[in-house]
Amino acid sequence: MKTYLDCIPCFMQQALRAGRLATNNEEKIKQLLDDTGDLIKHISMEKTPAEVGEVIYAKIREVTGIYDPYKDIKTKSIAEAKLMIPELKSILDKSENRLITSIRMAIAGNIIDFGMSKKFNLKEDLKRILTQDFAYFDFKAFEQHLKNAKTILYIADNAGESVFDRILIKEMGKKTYYAVREVPVINDVISEDAIASGLDEVSEIVSSGSHVPGTILSTCSAEFNQLFKDADLIISKGQGNYEGLSDEKRSVFFMLKAKCHVIAKDLGIKENDIVLKGINI
Amino acid sequence: MKTYLDCIPCFMQQALRAGRLATNNEEKIKQLLDDTGDLIKHISMEKTPAEVGEVIYAKIREVTGIYDPYKDIKTKSIAEAKLMIPELKSILDKSENRLITSIRMAIAGNIIDFGMSKKFNLKEDLKRILTQDFAYFDFKAFEQHLKNAKTILYIADNAGESVFDRILIKEMGKKTYYAVREVPVINDVISEDAIASGLDEVSEIVSSGSHVPGTILSTCSAEFNQLFKDADLIISKGQGNYEGLSDEKRSVFFMLKAKCHVIAKDLGIKENDIVLKGINI
Repeated sequence: MKTYLDCIPCFMQQALRAGRLATNNEEKIKQLLDDTGDLIKHISMEKTPAEVGEVIYAKIREVTGIYDPYKDIKTKSIAEAKLMIPELKSILDKSENRLITSIRMAIAGNIIDFGMSKKFNLKEDLKRILTQDFAYFDFKAFEQHLKNAKTILYIADNAGESVFDRILIKEMGKKTYYAVREVPVINDVISEDAIASGLDEVSEIVSSGSHVPGTILSTCSAEFNQLFKDADLIISKGQGNYEGLSDEKRSVFFMLKAKCHVIAKDLGIKENDIVLKGINI
Repeated sequence: MKTYLDCIPCFMQQALRAGRLATNNEEKIKQLLDDTGDLIKHISMEKTPAEVGEVIYAKIREVTGIYDPYKDIKTKSIAEAKLMIPELKSILDKSENRLITSIRMAIAGNIIDFGMSKKFNLKEDLKRILTQDFAYFDFKAFEQHLKNAKTILYIADNAGESVFDRILIKEMGKKTYYAVREVPVINDVISEDAIASGLDEVSEIVSSGSHVPGTILSTCSAEFNQLFKDADLIISKGQGNYEGLSDEKRSVFFMLKAKCHVIAKDLGIKENDIVLKGINI
């Protein structure tokens, strides 16, 4: 997916939000916005928004000197999500189709996204997503691929969402590689967040090598590229990963909630729609 | 009022919105965003957001070659507002206090603002504002000033809102100068919009000389500055005028709806609050 014009004011908004988390120094934040403004002319609209995001978050680290501005927020999101586990387990135990319900839970977790301007309410949004119609629902194909799969590559998105991913991974019961970002970018999962979310108990946590709030294979490690080639089933969570992988040639199943109109437009759906969509399946 | 950091992503959003109205050429719009990005480092946070807006809207005219991107929208807003006049007259005739009700109507008109990202519904918002509590309500002072006034300077804001201003001006029944912008900026009223709104029937339309989406006296004409000095009563509509006049030394009555959290914060009120606030009274 390419960058849309609408992404540009959004980059500026993200720089401000992350800058505010990193420092109280208004002059430093203004410097960050000045520098982000200067970057705009270098943005190629042919790149994905996630690739542009990398440059902006590197700038945030450089100007503020803070490596992981969203650290506290991520810790809080994971704790909040963990509190919901008993209730989620109870819902899962009562559900007609445990796989569909755990997919819905994993998608519901995708609302925990601090790259967006929108506010969210985890409990309320979860309740809605558990019954909401899917805009794409390639479940039959997904079920078939899962049945035949020995290994799964599960590409993570946000911290907190990771707790919900754990439920789906446990439910699927296969050898799973849980791929996280190499460095902190927005509130995306890095290795320590995945461990805090208990993913080490159900999967092998691997770094994608990505410095981008998404997955662009050319910027990922050789090991991750090998996994991407070899895995029997790939699950890609969230918008950032979709942006980078939507044009890939192998089968990938995307699970996400369309949280901005740009992504919704690219997918041909409406904002707030939820998606289980397979490509090349 | 000075510029806040939050205004900066908003400027970028405004450039995109106006660019889209002016042209379908995506490259031109990207150029506009590039140029706006370059401008950010030159923004002095000591200036008002309206002053920064001037530079951005001048850039929009320069890059797109379109003098008044909001022309069609303004025409439509005025027509839509005019359709509501019979209903507004009927409400006014039944109201307990005609002056308060016409002030409420004039403030309700202030929701017609295309500088904001927010969407609005004129009918619904009007209904709410007719009964909404005021965050500031300096009505007694206003009534007293009005009683003693021979001349009123009424500083306009948006096209469409102008139709509602006409109701209040007629109700006040004094010699009124209706001040509009010198050049088109966002959907602010210029002379031809004021005439289309019927303001020439109840007031003398004057240009403030402003190229800014607001009123900064130092950038206004000598004639307007004289009027500002001499008028017995000054009414300032909307956010843009508030930004430039909030620190002036003479009495001014502000009527507005706080449509963004930056203005709300500056006024010490909440977003969506409505205000009749006098300074130096």
